[in-house]
Amino acid sequence: MVGPSRFMTLLSCFELGLIDRLRETPGLTADQLGDVVGAKPDALEQLLLLLVKEGFVAYDENSGSYSLDALADVAEKDLRQVLADMDMIKVVTLRQLFYLTDSVRTGTTVGLKELYGHEGDLFGALVEHQDLRESWAKLMDTATAHIDPWFFDNIDIPPGSRVLDLGGHTGLGAIHTYNLKASPGLRVTTFDLPDREKECLANFRAHGVEDHCSFIGGDVFEGVPKGFDVVLIKHFLPMFDKSKVFRVLEEVSRSLEAGGQINVLVPVFPENTDEPNNHTVDFYPSFFLGCVMGQGGPRKLSTWQRWIEECGFEVTKAIAQDPASMPPHALPVEGILCATKAG
Amino acid sequence: MVGPSRFMTLLSCFELGLIDRLRETPGLTADQLGDVVGAKPDALEQLLLLLVKEGFVAYDENSGSYSLDALADVAEKDLRQVLADMDMIKVVTLRQLFYLTDSVRTGTTVGLKELYGHEGDLFGALVEHQDLRESWAKLMDTATAHIDPWFFDNIDIPPGSRVLDLGGHTGLGAIHTYNLKASPGLRVTTFDLPDREKECLANFRAHGVEDHCSFIGGDVFEGVPKGFDVVLIKHFLPMFDKSKVFRVLEEVSRSLEAGGQINVLVPVFPENTDEPNNHTVDFYPSFFLGCVMGQGGPRKLSTWQRWIEECGFEVTKAIAQDPASMPPHALPVEGILCATKAG
Repeated sequence: MVGPSRFMTLLSCFELGLIDRLRETPGLTADQLGDVVGAKPDALEQLLLLLVKEGFVAYDENSGSYSLDALADVAEKDLRQVLADMDMIKVVTLRQLFYLTDSVRTGTTVGLKELYGHEGDLFGALVEHQDLRESWAKLMDTATAHIDPWFFDNIDIPPGSRVLDLGGHTGLGAIHTYNLKASPGLRVTTFDLPDREKECLANFRAHGVEDHCSFIGGDVFEGVPKGFDVVLIKHFLPMFDKSKVFRVLEEVSRSLEAGGQINVLVPVFPENTDEPNNHTVDFYPSFFLGCVMGQGGPRKLSTWQRWIEECGFEVTKAIAQDPASMPPHALPVEGILCATKAG
Repeated sequence: MVGPSRFMTLLSCFELGLIDRLRETPGLTADQLGDVVGAKPDALEQLLLLLVKEGFVAYDENSGSYSLDALADVAEKDLRQVLADMDMIKVVTLRQLFYLTDSVRTGTTVGLKELYGHEGDLFGALVEHQDLRESWAKLMDTATAHIDPWFFDNIDIPPGSRVLDLGGHTGLGAIHTYNLKASPGLRVTTFDLPDREKECLANFRAHGVEDHCSFIGGDVFEGVPKGFDVVLIKHFLPMFDKSKVFRVLEEVSRSLEAGGQINVLVPVFPENTDEPNNHTVDFYPSFFLGCVMGQGGPRKLSTWQRWIEECGFEVTKAIAQDPASMPPHALPVEGILCATKAG
């Protein structure tokens, strides 16, 4: 019951600058902190109690002063990334979750409608609302930076392939593909809604890959372009309920020749739902249902594998991240599935 | 980081009626649940994963069906009270906490302004907004039902006393005082803002205590009426920062003759902040600062005692609830302090 309160009390101590001030100057009292951050000392004392309880901050009864405790040992870089995660959770989910039940009933993101007057999914709302966009972008940059190298390390793209990046937004995936899997004749095409074309092509030029990368505008559910050897499906399938996941996979299968390959990146639930140190189950259902799409969500790796096979592919690889090897702040456990269209 | 998500995922399963349906009919599949509660089975599968992880609900892989697990053993009455708590936390705090940092900076409840256009504290907002009022009332009724008997069991009101209930709202505390501490000549007066008078007097009549109870309208900070032997200060002091708590206690002291008594009911933090099973520190600071008043909060019992003594009283009793004896759903640990005005 105290989840939302704990979350915001901790984040608020960072937002107020208390942690940064105590890092610079250990041993400040509530009065001194109040002066430097511009808030009443009574209120700061109240908020800091939780951080003292958790051992993040130390309080000295005699002098009435605070210093960093466990937080002193957290590297600045890790802390910035945790804060980016917490800021995203605050901006993209906290208020929106109030409307979770209505979102589940209607299959729409009611929170975006109530709070932003936006009808549609989060990706549309990101275009219109800077607060959502900034908070989301900071998180995505962090996530992409640690996920994409792992993804490309684990997939095979035969030399000279023609690669389609399905739902590739504004080209970052295509650029990574070209740079990390370069081979003579490799061509990468971003496939997404037509309104992304301009920004995507500008990104290709900015990264000097415009001779090897291109853009095709369209809607996956109206057909996937033919003529490709390899299709990448990154961060796309968890946006949809099962029936739509199947439609995407079937459209991709239809677009490929026998022997054509897909490489899928998806968040995965643990095979044993009650695994205590895995928080995918705690966070992602309400995230996709209430805050992003009004549908969708992660699945177990074995479920993704079964669905891909039921859509006419032979799965050649199915791996999930080892939570132990992930950065401490990373919430999702991602999985990679490689598969070949059956002959 | 997953606190808000866990909270709303659990509450949403109740709001959707999933738990009630599974109690009536164990062994329903997601498809069957979707039909009866009017939501997509994919979404219900996603939400129920957390309840399976926590052992609240059991999932049978073979039949794909759900039944209550630990929740089957929770008495209906306890469950209703937990849900009243969770509903209050959702309605009164979840979205409001988004604005916690601004509330702390300004000393006002920014969330009420942003979400309801209300300038002022929660008690003013309750008058204007039915959703807040209903959610709050359900919780307060539950809390009062288990706290007031404990409070009156532990205080002494000499026969025939003239009792003032400070900040007594619409008279419930006065009615309880008269009924639980009856003695020949006992008179109880509710003291609160003048706009409560009409409802308060109606309540006295409805409970048949109008010959023994009365109402005085006024503002504590402009002076407390004289002529009373005993002052009750229930649920009032945690609304204020230290300087205002002192002003209240000083005004009360000024109103009393030497030997006059006060009986104070306040939420208390544990003496050891890091007590793991005490959640007062997790919940109440952000509750008072961000959602109720923009200031205030519980204190340790020893702090309340010290403050009361510094305002010219001799403390004769200071006790806190034993968390082990409290209903499992109760969040605050309350304390009682009895004190006599020094001669």
